Amino acid sequence: MPESAIHPIDRGASRTRSWWGWGYTDAHPDDAECAALGALLPGTLARPLPIPRVADLAIGRPGVMPPPALAHLVTEDPEARAAHAMGKAYRDVIRALRGRPRRIPDLVARPTDDQEVADLLEWAGERGVAVIPFGGGSSVVGGVEYRGDAHQAVLSLDLTSMDRVLEIDTASRAARIQAGALGPALEAQLRPHDLTLRHFPQSFEFSTLGGWLATRAGGHYATLHTHIDDFVQSLRVITPAGAGTSWRLPASGAGPSPDRLFLGSEGTLGVITEAWMRLQERPRYKASASVAFADFHRALDAVRTIAQSDLFPANCRLLDPGEAALSGASHDGSAVLVLGFESATARGDGRLATALDLARAHGGRGEARTAHGDAPADGPVNAWRSAFLRMPYLRDGLARMGAVVETFETATTWDRLPALIEAVRTEVGAAALKATGQEAAINCRLTHVYPDGAAPYFTVAVAGRPGDEVEVWDDIKAVVTDLLHRHHATVTHHHAVGRDHRPGYDLQRPEPFALALRATKDALDPHHILNPGVLLD
Amino acid sequence: MPESAIHPIDRGASRTRSWWGWGYTDAHPDDAECAALGALLPGTLARPLPIPRVADLAIGRPGVMPPPALAHLVTEDPEARAAHAMGKAYRDVIRALRGRPRRIPDLVARPTDDQEVADLLEWAGERGVAVIPFGGGSSVVGGVEYRGDAHQAVLSLDLTSMDRVLEIDTASRAARIQAGALGPALEAQLRPHDLTLRHFPQSFEFSTLGGWLATRAGGHYATLHTHIDDFVQSLRVITPAGAGTSWRLPASGAGPSPDRLFLGSEGTLGVITEAWMRLQERPRYKASASVAFADFHRALDAVRTIAQSDLFPANCRLLDPGEAALSGASHDGSAVLVLGFESATARGDGRLATALDLARAHGGRGEARTAHGDAPADGPVNAWRSAFLRMPYLRDGLARMGAVVETFETATTWDRLPALIEAVRTEVGAAALKATGQEAAINCRLTHVYPDGAAPYFTVAVAGRPGDEVEVWDDIKAVVTDLLHRHHATVTHHHAVGRDHRPGYDLQRPEPFALALRATKDALDPHHILNPGVLLD
Repeated sequence: MPESAIHPIDRGASRTRSWWGWGYTDAHPDDAECAALGALLPGTLARPLPIPRVADLAIGRPGVMPPPALAHLVTEDPEARAAHAMGKAYRDVIRALRGRPRRIPDLVARPTDDQEVADLLEWAGERGVAVIPFGGGSSVVGGVEYRGDAHQAVLSLDLTSMDRVLEIDTASRAARIQAGALGPALEAQLRPHDLTLRHFPQSFEFSTLGGWLATRAGGHYATLHTHIDDFVQSLRVITPAGAGTSWRLPASGAGPSPDRLFLGSEGTLGVITEAWMRLQERPRYKASASVAFADFHRALDAVRTIAQSDLFPANCRLLDPGEAALSGASHDGSAVLVLGFESATARGDGRLATALDLARAHGGRGEARTAHGDAPADGPVNAWRSAFLRMPYLRDGLARMGAVVETFETATTWDRLPALIEAVRTEVGAAALKATGQEAAINCRLTHVYPDGAAPYFTVAVAGRPGDEVEVWDDIKAVVTDLLHRHHATVTHHHAVGRDHRPGYDLQRPEPFALALRATKDALDPHHILNPGVLLD
Repeated sequence: MPESAIHPIDRGASRTRSWWGWGYTDAHPDDAECAALGALLPGTLARPLPIPRVADLAIGRPGVMPPPALAHLVTEDPEARAAHAMGKAYRDVIRALRGRPRRIPDLVARPTDDQEVADLLEWAGERGVAVIPFGGGSSVVGGVEYRGDAHQAVLSLDLTSMDRVLEIDTASRAARIQAGALGPALEAQLRPHDLTLRHFPQSFEFSTLGGWLATRAGGHYATLHTHIDDFVQSLRVITPAGAGTSWRLPASGAGPSPDRLFLGSEGTLGVITEAWMRLQERPRYKASASVAFADFHRALDAVRTIAQSDLFPANCRLLDPGEAALSGASHDGSAVLVLGFESATARGDGRLATALDLARAHGGRGEARTAHGDAPADGPVNAWRSAFLRMPYLRDGLARMGAVVETFETATTWDRLPALIEAVRTEVGAAALKATGQEAAINCRLTHVYPDGAAPYFTVAVAGRPGDEVEVWDDIKAVVTDLLHRHHATVTHHHAVGRDHRPGYDLQRPEPFALALRATKDALDPHHILNPGVLLD
């Protein structure tokens, strides 16, 4: 691709990212909005916690400095280091708000090419410096913070200076993309070619291709190609033991998939620096509908029937009554199924009609809102989407009111799903009551559905015990982990393992694979500098 | 599932399997048919080579015997050992016909449960006995034979006594199936539940679930879910370092996929003894068509357009003019695209019409042969299917006439595909001419297609040099390997690596993954007894 064909990148430079909370500072709820949010949850604080300041963190000098040849790649700026200290889980936000001490990285590095990544890894290995690969920093599982004390110093390896689309193969609809590209910059570079990756996680604006790949992120599609994994054609990985690139192939049966070992490795085995990604044409046809169900269990049956058809809706999200009310999709206590079809080949509406027939056969009430066009701005589909993108900001607003507000997600087979959802409502509700003395709001939606099961996503909101919010959440989370394990539901469908999910992950992982992963870690990262504590000890 | 619900298994016991050639002995072409086949290829023998006899192999006593507790699991019967000595590549068949010496396993074991597999592995590890996991024995890449001399003895581990469907979850449409089930027995046990795995490789009758999983077999579907990998819900694996079972999950983002490490491991890391597999409803609607193209390159464009749509045909096989003529699908020099749609949700014909429109826009001539029913018995679709299943028997008939007849397959991206196909015709044709002095017939079809590329499958047929057929094929294959490497086309799309594809595989595999695989091998198979020489040294 000629340089001239490359679109200028909108890096969102005109807006300020929050170092302690979600997204852009100018999108944060102000004090009055926080107070209004808090009024919805009995027992929260009377006024919001103040916005934390980097100056209060007393960030010291770095414990180590790289040799002169690498010095220009790193910064010891306190603002940068604070912004790289944690991810964006509720647990991270409330720790920042409460001024709780935690390990701030000594340095932030911003390499611009593979050689600089390799040089930094070599130096870190020699000096025993922990290296934490960092994309957009939107981890909600403790994936980008350092815990422990086995390393001399901590380096946050920020990949966002490597954010270009380097090549496009229009015949095969694929592009070679640097791992540090944030969602908007990535899509902006593809748009002039009428192509799109169409991977739109909730964190789209604040997460990178490399982060999506390293954590097996879940994206736009509710069926069929739900994870970023399916769109990977080849990966380039820099490990302390050497670099390698898998071949660009549409499919291969040559041994175990090399890419699948690095997808989900969460920065523990190597640093993904670029990938050839499979792209889509932009959809020309869209059709959507929302279907109301008086009975949540009949709604589950309807979704299962649709998931087991070959209709493959792009959107197939079932909101339970609480979730539907919260997002404005219903006001009468109904569960709501949001259905969306899209296509570049002009057959969306026929599938929507078939899906609606299936939903009605299970007691659903609804009809197509659109055919061959975008969803109307005032419809429940868009109401839900707007709420979806606004949610993390509202969570932070509630956190400032001392509330405990967090989500967790999982996946299990259809035979186990109803009992799992019921158990979450009962047992997590009881745990929240025990920890806070307050009734928690617990909502559920299905975000992704499969022929053999579904991925439920839960939201828990309850007033915390002032000052003990972290402990309250940790108590609740321990109940969640145990519950998921007993129900054989995965510890994570698309939020990754990080450090927070280690207890559940260790129980879930088959022992032969654990042996293989440890052996691989020793071979590729012999000094154990890469993201210590994630996936493995 | 109650025992009474389990259907009796048709193990095909009434027919005799060939120890040296494909399939059932009663389906082999007789001498007159072989001669008629040979007459099609100038330069072949005047009369067929005799059918080889086990008695002529001079099979000796085993070099080792297991302890009494395991003795009932093994046999030293020469017929059984001969039938487990090799796979069913052309190279294997011609070596049997030419009476070439090769290593016959000392023993064949037929364990009936996981504990017996573990016990056999433990004994073999202690005694330095090589263990070659064996399903249906249909490997065409040297995947089930022993080469080398580093082991005291060789044990063929035949899994076909473990062939039951153990559990069915109808809500999630999944079943727990033992790895030794051959295709027909597996489907027979699912049929009473109106479910099907719908994995129909050419070797369906003579290959097992475990073999499909260990080699990442390609199956029925030409698009979307082309490999067995996509239907795996969980795996049970017995390794020399211990056993493990992954959780039954519709999807998970918890670390790198544990199953994907064992899918494609070809018996080198452990023995897959059972799997939960995702099943399909039996399709109620089918629609098919064949489309003729005067121009092969326009046909490629048509197929690419269909592959990049969201129509997802179950069958989308493009036959070049030679392949179309051979299978009776065309007689006028046209390339033929065989299209098939199937569905349990009643929308096949709409998609077929759209696909035909796309094909016609690229110069295709054709119309739907059927809508909502099976393909007519006399149509080109069925002509091609019959020829497909008969092909390996004909290959063996030609081998008896001293011909060199073999296939190879690969996959590459669309941008590289036309040049690859052209290079195969030119360079492999030249190599065959050089090796034999005869013009080779080289045909091509696309077996599986993807949005970003396709899997071409080539057939080479040429009269060999009598007595030197193995060397002729090895010379041709070396040219193929080099060519695929230069064109960055995978060494195998669905035939696996085995021992025959090692040179190409070693070049293709990224070095960090090679390090990981070696480390994993050392951890899981510390005595290096499992399928030595496959994937790794």
